[in-house]
Amino acid sequence: MGGMAKGSGMIHPNMATMLSFIATDAAINPNVLQEALSEVVDETYNMISVDGDTSTNDMVLVLANGLAGNSPIIQKNGDYHVFKKALSALCFKLSELIVRDGEGATKFITVKVLNAPSIEDARKAARSVTTSALIKTAIFGEDANWGRVIMAVGNSGANFDPGIVDMYIESNAGKEQMMKKGMGLAFSEENARKILGQRDISLIVDMNMGPSEATAWTCDFSYDYVKINADYRS
Amino acid sequence: MGGMAKGSGMIHPNMATMLSFIATDAAINPNVLQEALSEVVDETYNMISVDGDTSTNDMVLVLANGLAGNSPIIQKNGDYHVFKKALSALCFKLSELIVRDGEGATKFITVKVLNAPSIEDARKAARSVTTSALIKTAIFGEDANWGRVIMAVGNSGANFDPGIVDMYIESNAGKEQMMKKGMGLAFSEENARKILGQRDISLIVDMNMGPSEATAWTCDFSYDYVKINADYRS
Repeated sequence: MGGMAKGSGMIHPNMATMLSFIATDAAINPNVLQEALSEVVDETYNMISVDGDTSTNDMVLVLANGLAGNSPIIQKNGDYHVFKKALSALCFKLSELIVRDGEGATKFITVKVLNAPSIEDARKAARSVTTSALIKTAIFGEDANWGRVIMAVGNSGANFDPGIVDMYIESNAGKEQMMKKGMGLAFSEENARKILGQRDISLIVDMNMGPSEATAWTCDFSYDYVKINADYRS
Repeated sequence: MGGMAKGSGMIHPNMATMLSFIATDAAINPNVLQEALSEVVDETYNMISVDGDTSTNDMVLVLANGLAGNSPIIQKNGDYHVFKKALSALCFKLSELIVRDGEGATKFITVKVLNAPSIEDARKAARSVTTSALIKTAIFGEDANWGRVIMAVGNSGANFDPGIVDMYIESNAGKEQMMKKGMGLAFSEENARKILGQRDISLIVDMNMGPSEATAWTCDFSYDYVKINADYRS
């Protein structure tokens, strides 16, 4: 299975200039293949954002020619799950590469929403954090501004109780809790700076409310993002 | 009647750090006053955006003490309409000042959507244009990128037909048509640069579809916006 994707401005996919093509030699029924792709796209391409602007022609195509010679996948059996796992791994990787290639990006930001009442609530909240200009500029500035994160979660329309939320920042340099049960903590600014000084950063919002979780990805908002999009014809 | 408003970051009001206080000496029934305020807020404060992030505590309060000695306004009579006109003019002005005071702003951008099927469609489309980072950086760069504008209209969820849309840019330096019946025109780049070189710029989208219109306001997205929001604690 192979794939490629084109980015990386006007990126906030909703299967609408993000273009991605995936090819596999697996023998698989077209309806089953489309169902696998749609499910995978919802948790990969549709959970990334570079600038919050949805392109006019996002597209993910998958082509299967059957040359692998496997017995054709026509139902959701064990083979299907193996296939879908490979498709999912590929789509996660391509989605990550689109964000890393984001215009002016200096950071790769993973937003995890844990213990949400539903997948929809978790996705709404995670996606709202990835589209906030205030959060994306704060991360560019390596500033642990947890207030902006809870603002974006509150603003998302997701069902949650701000009074019981825990929040963390994490990277290769460590982990620091910013909020506990809805209250800001007296965290170590020095440790926070170390964590945010890395290239890959996670913002973790634990709603402490239900069984569902979601992850979304974005990049920071830098001087170069403005330069690229204001001066590109000069 | 007097008023003041606090801005101007985390501004995308949805009556949630935008704070505005209005006082009047008119005698007016509280219910009638609230109704007038709610209607006016929908077309003023709720149609501005600086960074697309809705604050946790937007608020507009109006206080009326009755010292004007007018016969109390208790229904939607002629006096009510005079009062509402004054309230509307005040709220438009305060909303404009919040946007002009936007973090890093160098331009004041008015987005007009004309001949939409409904007010809701017109507002959705206008608001979507005011929150697009790609449009706000293009205007900072004085670039007549009509493609980004039609992207944001299409992306808004408003009901319209892209095949019949006309689009214009306008300022004190003149007016130029960018799209006609959904097609990009071979416009004068020189004239467009002159128009966009002004401080106050209008983007006009004519849907050619119905009786409704709406106006929304925003500022451009500049290097200083990133600086203010990334480095504000340094």
